Amino acid sequence: MNPPTAANAPRSGTAWRGLIEEYRRYLPVTDSTPVVTLREGNTPLIPVPTIAAEIGKGVRVFVKYDGLNPTGSFKDRGMTMAVTKAKEAGGEAVICASTGNTSAAAAAYARRAGMRAYVLIPDGYVALGKLAQALMYGAEVIAIKGNFDRALELVKESAEKYPVTLVNSLNPFRLQGQKTAAFEVTDGLGNAPDWLCIPVGNAGNITAYWMGFNEYYQEGRCTKLPRMMGFQAAGSAPFVQGGIVKDPETIATAIRIGNPANYDKALKVRAESNGEFNPVTDEEILVAYQKLAAEGVFCEPASAASVAGLLKKKDAVPFGATIVCVLTGNGLKDPDTAIKRSGDDQFYQGVEPDMASVAKLMGF
Amino acid sequence: MNPPTAANAPRSGTAWRGLIEEYRRYLPVTDSTPVVTLREGNTPLIPVPTIAAEIGKGVRVFVKYDGLNPTGSFKDRGMTMAVTKAKEAGGEAVICASTGNTSAAAAAYARRAGMRAYVLIPDGYVALGKLAQALMYGAEVIAIKGNFDRALELVKESAEKYPVTLVNSLNPFRLQGQKTAAFEVTDGLGNAPDWLCIPVGNAGNITAYWMGFNEYYQEGRCTKLPRMMGFQAAGSAPFVQGGIVKDPETIATAIRIGNPANYDKALKVRAESNGEFNPVTDEEILVAYQKLAAEGVFCEPASAASVAGLLKKKDAVPFGATIVCVLTGNGLKDPDTAIKRSGDDQFYQGVEPDMASVAKLMGF
Repeated sequence: MNPPTAANAPRSGTAWRGLIEEYRRYLPVTDSTPVVTLREGNTPLIPVPTIAAEIGKGVRVFVKYDGLNPTGSFKDRGMTMAVTKAKEAGGEAVICASTGNTSAAAAAYARRAGMRAYVLIPDGYVALGKLAQALMYGAEVIAIKGNFDRALELVKESAEKYPVTLVNSLNPFRLQGQKTAAFEVTDGLGNAPDWLCIPVGNAGNITAYWMGFNEYYQEGRCTKLPRMMGFQAAGSAPFVQGGIVKDPETIATAIRIGNPANYDKALKVRAESNGEFNPVTDEEILVAYQKLAAEGVFCEPASAASVAGLLKKKDAVPFGATIVCVLTGNGLKDPDTAIKRSGDDQFYQGVEPDMASVAKLMGF
Repeated sequence: MNPPTAANAPRSGTAWRGLIEEYRRYLPVTDSTPVVTLREGNTPLIPVPTIAAEIGKGVRVFVKYDGLNPTGSFKDRGMTMAVTKAKEAGGEAVICASTGNTSAAAAAYARRAGMRAYVLIPDGYVALGKLAQALMYGAEVIAIKGNFDRALELVKESAEKYPVTLVNSLNPFRLQGQKTAAFEVTDGLGNAPDWLCIPVGNAGNITAYWMGFNEYYQEGRCTKLPRMMGFQAAGSAPFVQGGIVKDPETIATAIRIGNPANYDKALKVRAESNGEFNPVTDEEILVAYQKLAAEGVFCEPASAASVAGLLKKKDAVPFGATIVCVLTGNGLKDPDTAIKRSGDDQFYQGVEPDMASVAKLMGF
């Protein structure tokens, strides 16, 4: 049968072929690499004029809405590379410790590649709903009597002892895939932005974006490099506090990480880009989350940290700047937060079924 | 301030500008039309080789995954047009009777346009979770003591008597926006497909696709026209039964429609395209839903009707055909079905936190 991405790919059309094919020469693949793709990437750059107006100064603000990747988060960018390389190396399975976006992406790409996906989590830690997506794609979930750190240890040990590829943040190929988001932003705008605002958890994405902007800059595909503005949830801010945070807490679960895998790399990004790490409170995150919804963009709470941070730093924004805020995940991943933030004053129940009653509610 | 889509749009880059800008000359807009866009469209065409292999005959099968539109369904294509035209006409609000994808899209685009969005539903009919997305975008939901038909009557009456634009399926501009999906499919493949398989509820989308293919064909942008293969849930199949179905029932709620708004138009599509309407059972839909997940694509149950139908009609598929199945919505919209269809045999709980126990479960 046809492999997923060669004979089956559109032959003469312009369909997006996924980020490995589109940015092949920047990535560690050869002609014989078995590319595993769901046509990820190519996500929209959406102007957010209300947020730009709040900053003023003639700035342009866009969100890079990576929640429109195939499994609903930016993790797909890294996972297409990680699973492709695992397949190339003859791997039969992938493994990760994750309760969220990583597990969904790992499961989808592994299944696509005809590989198994194992997800290790702490027992009793997570509701089935959170894992529904990974389970749908066929992941096998192993809930251990231990904490998340123990799960990660077992993931590492599995990868050392068995033909299973680790696809957690430690996998080096993930950042290679993720850097393509910087290419898309630059191609989309015609240049790099002045500021890149991004939520920071494990700090892989900020590291990958910086790598991407630099590769393009060295080729002359952009004439400037952005300041990399990383934002962390105040209760989970090792870069702000200057060290490991025990028991990090925030509503933005996707960035609730106290000991980032890419700590040193991200410090280098800050230094090289003249960037900053700043904290945003959960309340600021939720306010930004609702402002984004008011622009018609529904993201995960963690994603809104980038916009919350931009608004917090608005006095430092240069006049006429072009700013891109990264939205890492789709709001549909976390309906509970949406329900909690929706006002009762938007929902009228038990209304008489006549025009007068309805018109009155509408203010006519 | 900058309008959403002129000054704020990328100036020299290649970013996708949304379907109205990209296909402007095919759409009823002028230079002064205030385009309301979330950069919808440009969704991936994903090869599904396992499903192609099941059909054999050297066919190529792609899914047009419209669940990756900004609000998670194909409704965004129609809503960008409907809300743009409402705004152009000076409208201040939109209204619809919907518990699903239409209400989310209407709310997002209305808010983007600075308009209000009213959603009328039967009281007690729907769980808050179903409406979470529309509420997040700022919709005002009016639950009346009456059934869905009464809600639709009040919607129509509101639109006649007040400055509120109806954006249900009766809005003529929605099909104009939706036809761009046929343009994207044709551009993506380099030609029209041989078969276009599509779920049929109100029959707006099959009508719009056919309109789009024909407009491209008349311009010579494709050298053939597809057979339009519409699939309905067996318990909600007016086109199969040849008339209105009272009390339609199916798990595929997005196509649970007994009295399609575009009945006559869709009969014409069938005749003109040498197409067919066929039923698929809920069980066949769910099997296809899981086969798609096994390709790494997570869609709404209703979306899977297109693939279920293709598999049912596989004996009729021509040798070497290129087939596109339309997936209308994102699986994240309906986590409950995903949870129900995930096997307990994928979830191991209370596992001892040692390598031997974990390795045994993984089969090593």
